[in-house]
Amino acid sequence: MNFCSKCGHPVQLGIPPDDDRERHICQSCGMVHYQNPKLIVGCIIHWEDNILLCKRAIEPRYGLWTTPAGFLENGESLEEGAVRETWEEARAEVEISRIFAISSLPHINQIYVHFLAKLKHLNFSPGPESEDVQLFHKDEIDWDSIAFSAVSFALTSYVHDPDSLQVYCNTIIKRQWTE
Amino acid sequence: MNFCSKCGHPVQLGIPPDDDRERHICQSCGMVHYQNPKLIVGCIIHWEDNILLCKRAIEPRYGLWTTPAGFLENGESLEEGAVRETWEEARAEVEISRIFAISSLPHINQIYVHFLAKLKHLNFSPGPESEDVQLFHKDEIDWDSIAFSAVSFALTSYVHDPDSLQVYCNTIIKRQWTE
Repeated sequence: MNFCSKCGHPVQLGIPPDDDRERHICQSCGMVHYQNPKLIVGCIIHWEDNILLCKRAIEPRYGLWTTPAGFLENGESLEEGAVRETWEEARAEVEISRIFAISSLPHINQIYVHFLAKLKHLNFSPGPESEDVQLFHKDEIDWDSIAFSAVSFALTSYVHDPDSLQVYCNTIIKRQWTE
Repeated sequence: MNFCSKCGHPVQLGIPPDDDRERHICQSCGMVHYQNPKLIVGCIIHWEDNILLCKRAIEPRYGLWTTPAGFLENGESLEEGAVRETWEEARAEVEISRIFAISSLPHINQIYVHFLAKLKHLNFSPGPESEDVQLFHKDEIDWDSIAFSAVSFALTSYVHDPDSLQVYCNTIIKRQWTE
């Protein structure tokens, strides 16, 4: 951030009064520009003992597999965002049963929220960001092909104990992926 | 948002290629400025059958009572943010036991996350944003004095069933407060 989005003048880093950390502050109008973590919402989608996964057609992690998930938009509830992402990436219609896993990724300012959801029917197909969409038996997931640590955490928690009422929470403190 | 925070030129609303909703797009460098919901993290803090609440010394809802809660900062996990806000607003040290309640407030682009936490000791006092901090027996909370709908939801869920392993989720679809 170099310029104030309100008045267009340059910003500088500084600690505002009554604050204790550096923010971008406009040198003309004084506006303080806060930056906060973003939410990513997605679904663990099951059909009997199978889980629906999408093969990524975009970077990052092109060609690897993920749950349908993406950035929560303004004006959405968590559940609405997860259902929308599922439609966009897997053209699948789901019924959310409950919240299932939450990962904090402080090194990249992201919070992942996964819901457990059931496929309404077996019509699904790749959306524009997916190369392929498939059901995998839960014992046959290739864990080395999963795109993101937070997705691995949600999926392994589900495979380990699909009926747990607990919400699985963790913090991924650094990139757990070799690039 | 009127100007690009990267190059300082004017932005205009438009739908980027491969997108389906309006974003602020820089008319000079082409940068797309996404705006996403913010996370608010806090704690339901218990000591035996009592709950710790803070009387707000700032707007909005000056003089009303709340759990210690505030915006998650970049570089924090959800739990770290909740513990920090508890220290800042109530000068209280807590041990988090588990995630307890989540509210989506799509009309103001906020997601509230409350953890259940236990006071480590009875030393607490108002931080700069609080006028008072007190323990209230859970049957003696004045519900009309609670500052925010999402806080009321978390607290009533706790009073109703403090031992539930379920995470309580709701969506607050409009302001439930008369002003």
